[in-house]
Amino acid sequence: MPEKRYTVRFEPDGVSIDVYREAENLLRLAMVAGVHVNASCGGAGTCGKCKVKILQGENRSAPSSKLSDADWEHGYRLACQTEVLGDLVVEVPVESRYEKDVLARKLTRATEEHVLAEARLDAEYALEKSDPAVVRYYLELSPPAEDNNVSDMGRIGHALKKEFGIPRITPDYSVLRSMSTTLRDRNWAVTATVCRTRGGHRLTRVEAGDTRDATYALAVDIGTTTIHAALLDVNTCEEVVRAADYNSQISLGEDVITRIVQALKPGGLETLQKRAVKTMNGVLSECFEKSGVTPDAVTHAVFGGNTTMTQLFLGLNPKYIREAPYVPAANFFPLFRPAELGVALPADVLGYAMPCVASYVGGDITAGVLATGIHLHPQLTLFMDVGTNGEIVIGNQDWMVSASASAGPAFEGGGVKCGMRATFGAVEQVRINRANFEPMILTIGQVKPKGICGSGMIDCLAEFQDAGVISQNGKINRELAARTPRIREGDTGWEFVLAWKDETQLDSDLVVCEPDIDNLVRTKASIYAACSVLLKSVGLHFDDLEKIIIAGGFGRYIDVEKAMTIGLLPEVKPEIVSYGGNTSLLGCRMAALYQDKVEEAETIATMITNIELSASNIYMDEYVAALFLPHTRMEEFPVRAERLKATREALMQ
Amino acid sequence: MPEKRYTVRFEPDGVSIDVYREAENLLRLAMVAGVHVNASCGGAGTCGKCKVKILQGENRSAPSSKLSDADWEHGYRLACQTEVLGDLVVEVPVESRYEKDVLARKLTRATEEHVLAEARLDAEYALEKSDPAVVRYYLELSPPAEDNNVSDMGRIGHALKKEFGIPRITPDYSVLRSMSTTLRDRNWAVTATVCRTRGGHRLTRVEAGDTRDATYALAVDIGTTTIHAALLDVNTCEEVVRAADYNSQISLGEDVITRIVQALKPGGLETLQKRAVKTMNGVLSECFEKSGVTPDAVTHAVFGGNTTMTQLFLGLNPKYIREAPYVPAANFFPLFRPAELGVALPADVLGYAMPCVASYVGGDITAGVLATGIHLHPQLTLFMDVGTNGEIVIGNQDWMVSASASAGPAFEGGGVKCGMRATFGAVEQVRINRANFEPMILTIGQVKPKGICGSGMIDCLAEFQDAGVISQNGKINRELAARTPRIREGDTGWEFVLAWKDETQLDSDLVVCEPDIDNLVRTKASIYAACSVLLKSVGLHFDDLEKIIIAGGFGRYIDVEKAMTIGLLPEVKPEIVSYGGNTSLLGCRMAALYQDKVEEAETIATMITNIELSASNIYMDEYVAALFLPHTRMEEFPVRAERLKATREALMQ
Repeated sequence: MPEKRYTVRFEPDGVSIDVYREAENLLRLAMVAGVHVNASCGGAGTCGKCKVKILQGENRSAPSSKLSDADWEHGYRLACQTEVLGDLVVEVPVESRYEKDVLARKLTRATEEHVLAEARLDAEYALEKSDPAVVRYYLELSPPAEDNNVSDMGRIGHALKKEFGIPRITPDYSVLRSMSTTLRDRNWAVTATVCRTRGGHRLTRVEAGDTRDATYALAVDIGTTTIHAALLDVNTCEEVVRAADYNSQISLGEDVITRIVQALKPGGLETLQKRAVKTMNGVLSECFEKSGVTPDAVTHAVFGGNTTMTQLFLGLNPKYIREAPYVPAANFFPLFRPAELGVALPADVLGYAMPCVASYVGGDITAGVLATGIHLHPQLTLFMDVGTNGEIVIGNQDWMVSASASAGPAFEGGGVKCGMRATFGAVEQVRINRANFEPMILTIGQVKPKGICGSGMIDCLAEFQDAGVISQNGKINRELAARTPRIREGDTGWEFVLAWKDETQLDSDLVVCEPDIDNLVRTKASIYAACSVLLKSVGLHFDDLEKIIIAGGFGRYIDVEKAMTIGLLPEVKPEIVSYGGNTSLLGCRMAALYQDKVEEAETIATMITNIELSASNIYMDEYVAALFLPHTRMEEFPVRAERLKATREALMQ
Repeated sequence: MPEKRYTVRFEPDGVSIDVYREAENLLRLAMVAGVHVNASCGGAGTCGKCKVKILQGENRSAPSSKLSDADWEHGYRLACQTEVLGDLVVEVPVESRYEKDVLARKLTRATEEHVLAEARLDAEYALEKSDPAVVRYYLELSPPAEDNNVSDMGRIGHALKKEFGIPRITPDYSVLRSMSTTLRDRNWAVTATVCRTRGGHRLTRVEAGDTRDATYALAVDIGTTTIHAALLDVNTCEEVVRAADYNSQISLGEDVITRIVQALKPGGLETLQKRAVKTMNGVLSECFEKSGVTPDAVTHAVFGGNTTMTQLFLGLNPKYIREAPYVPAANFFPLFRPAELGVALPADVLGYAMPCVASYVGGDITAGVLATGIHLHPQLTLFMDVGTNGEIVIGNQDWMVSASASAGPAFEGGGVKCGMRATFGAVEQVRINRANFEPMILTIGQVKPKGICGSGMIDCLAEFQDAGVISQNGKINRELAARTPRIREGDTGWEFVLAWKDETQLDSDLVVCEPDIDNLVRTKASIYAACSVLLKSVGLHFDDLEKIIIAGGFGRYIDVEKAMTIGLLPEVKPEIVSYGGNTSLLGCRMAALYQDKVEEAETIATMITNIELSASNIYMDEYVAALFLPHTRMEEFPVRAERLKATREALMQ
């Protein structure tokens, strides 16, 4: 054991960690200590997110353009650029802290809103009758006798065939090892758990007595940012409880690209795999605690995630997802035992991962299509899952095309100076007084603001546009600096002060600056351009869309009118737009309850043609055309064109 | 760590072991020390096999009827009945020692002799063309490109389908985890190992480059006494090398019943499982060393064993094999990964265990039928596998019945005073001078005798009978005591001295006594009665038999004429009797090389109707009738009847 050199205490958590090496990296220590510090560039010093305040102690830190002079004066350093040279007391600033409670709040709101997807589940199935791929059968066997001494396994196999029409069943070895004792426990009355697959039937568990009453399944959405799980009562088809938490992979990078980079470091894949599982175990444990259901009562689990999240969870090398021409290890995944991956479920619970379409269109999208039923109806539908990434599917019962827009994390607070996730203290709505340009802001949880979230940025930008604070190219109207102190030139260019320092939880003014706006414009442009390319690839136009479904954690907060104002969404009749909610979780839920939905999911994944935007020769043109508010082709936004004209006229007065 | 009390040294191995408990059991110590001492009753003190000589030191030992007064005087004790009270020096007598070399000798002899079974393999297949269930395919894939960016797994799947017509393949997770790197190792040239099963195709390995040249499979016969393995070159169908060793489970009991009893003790199953694997690993390691083949070149392995051996190897509770109505855990076994059982093979090598018929008719018999082709021809065939147990199959292409005779270990030297296995020093042939009753004996290895093996006992009994030394009820002719000192009344009843003490490696005369003869008579009676019951069950007689195949390690040493003389075999034309050799290993070899043989084996196991002799109402009558030399119904042995008449007349003179 090496000698201890220093101690670092992280505030306000009060977590301390011993340091054994001279000049140990502070971000690394925070990770080991389990203290969350935002870090979206993986420790490269480029994102500037891992800002911490050194309250006390000796350290050596590289200067960074991400820190203002005032920051440096106040003791702010980038954790990833700081080496520990003595006992330290470090404060993790509010913007790095997660408040898990907000997830529950979001879920409540979501439940009210995702009318569409739940509706499909309601409409297409009599909810009291499930037909899952994993089924429990109750058997009352006749005990062995001289004239009937087939093997224990043969006895179960014959009964399953005779009573339930199940042909040739293959037992798991775990069953063969325990079965003989179990059969004799309650006088040859047993419950057999059978997984029905294309390749045959598999016997995964034999329990004494009749255990059918308590039969549960799990649906798990493995998001880049959050992991959601729903515990389902297989007998009633009810969702018993739902829980969620932030994916603890976040501290190793905020987006899939950074995670892939991390995964390629020695031991990286294993670390990321374990982190996802750790978060998942917490979420599952919450489900079990809240419901009183025991893990033993679970027979199977369905997992949905984007391609990277799925590969990381399954321990598959994600390297080539990131390298052109962007090839995943696999799009279809064999059944697995989650317990072997570290998931806290009984060893014989089977897991199924939703099939993926391509490197950047994953199982969450397949699940989303399954949940929303795009593939079943004639209407031309645009499905957008806007989260950490932006995935798009356009199609109907006959065909579907998909694309992934390199949306970037702007909607999740990334690349935005005062950006943050949609948790307490995030500005989510903004109104600008047309006379004096004073803002009215509303935060999540209605507490003092500490940043602005993605939907807040859309709201803000639309309002800036309508109020004339910014022009159509996203630049702040410098002339207005004479009319309000909120418009000024700051460290990072021109900015608008949404809240003065003393009104916030921050050590500085809460601003939206031009680079923030540029970031958001690029993001919305990439999504709009992706939709445009997809439509053109099949010879259609935005006018042809009969339905738009916005899914994903972020999507549900978008104000449709505002999204059209900035040109994130095309200008369509608002009533054709609906929210899907967490369609990934919902699709997993359907696959967990209905066997035929598993096959349907595989059909969907096969049916979708993915278009690689980087290989499209019109994408760049479309993208550049969309780098305008709402768009260069104003004829696509007639209502907004009218309104902008009015704004300009008002400002002239 | 408790304090060391004593040390026990075992001679002639010179192995020492420290003793930490007062009055520790000597047999237990021998086991821990890895010193082999025969023990067929598992330590109950009833078999008398674990005789050792205490050369020095304090001990406490229970007296035993298995030890003569002279034995006791000379320091002989039953190890299982002896407690250690001081430092001991213990000599393990020669009859307890194994000499592994003899297995190689037996194999050489076997190779010459098992003409029949090898013949089938030669005749039915062009030996240079294998068609195993596990196949390697070489693929030269086109690298991913913008217009061809299916997943890595999809690329392999498409190529396998297009080039080799393999539909829908399911990869193992181990493949998914390593494949992406492997594919890019040698510019997308890979070898895919595919297992073709009824339930679909499974991808078990992907290797860089073309590895087809070195492709091997293993056939492993897990016998109660010995474990044999053959390394097969899949490309040439040749057996590259064969190796064998004594199953180290032996020290926990000589027959399957004792092993089952041991398995039911706490930790017993695990211990037995590990012991079988330990021996197997030694045998495999010998195969690899001798051939220079590396374990990486092995793609699959086929295992054959009786039901108990199979269950112990796979870690399945054998409890109910032993309890009426004798139910095995399973007769058909899913594919498994031997490495997960501890077998020293790469993790992705697949294992297949030969299907069993019933608790006492196992995968070795199924393999035997497969190897000898009984199920393919119209001739009525009797198949006898006489080893530690005696299993019988009668039938042809239309039907087959089987039974297991509780033969007991008499043929392996069990229950016979000077009995021993067929290793160096075992008497294997006996001739008696008709005038003075002096014997001429021949031992294996032609060394000084140290016991008599099973085939030696048959030889001896037949000769005793022909010479008039014993009568038809197996009793020694007391009147002859007057004509030779070799016939006398000993500690255990009347006996015949085959060799005087100073001619042997023993501390006493080498004798065959009446209880030995009784044992052998009971054994042969149970086998003959089993055949008789099987034939009667289908309305046939011994006359109807067109072919008799004797298989098993012991079978190949039987002199057919002698076996008929004692009534072990029915009196048939000697030319219809043939030796099968190790048909279990041969059947495994066929299943390893030919996919259709795997299915054929499953058909055989399903096709055979097992008859439980203990439930037969004629078995006891048949058994009692067979407790006579050669048989009570002398009309079934007309040649022997003539000869006996001549013997009696000669003795009268």
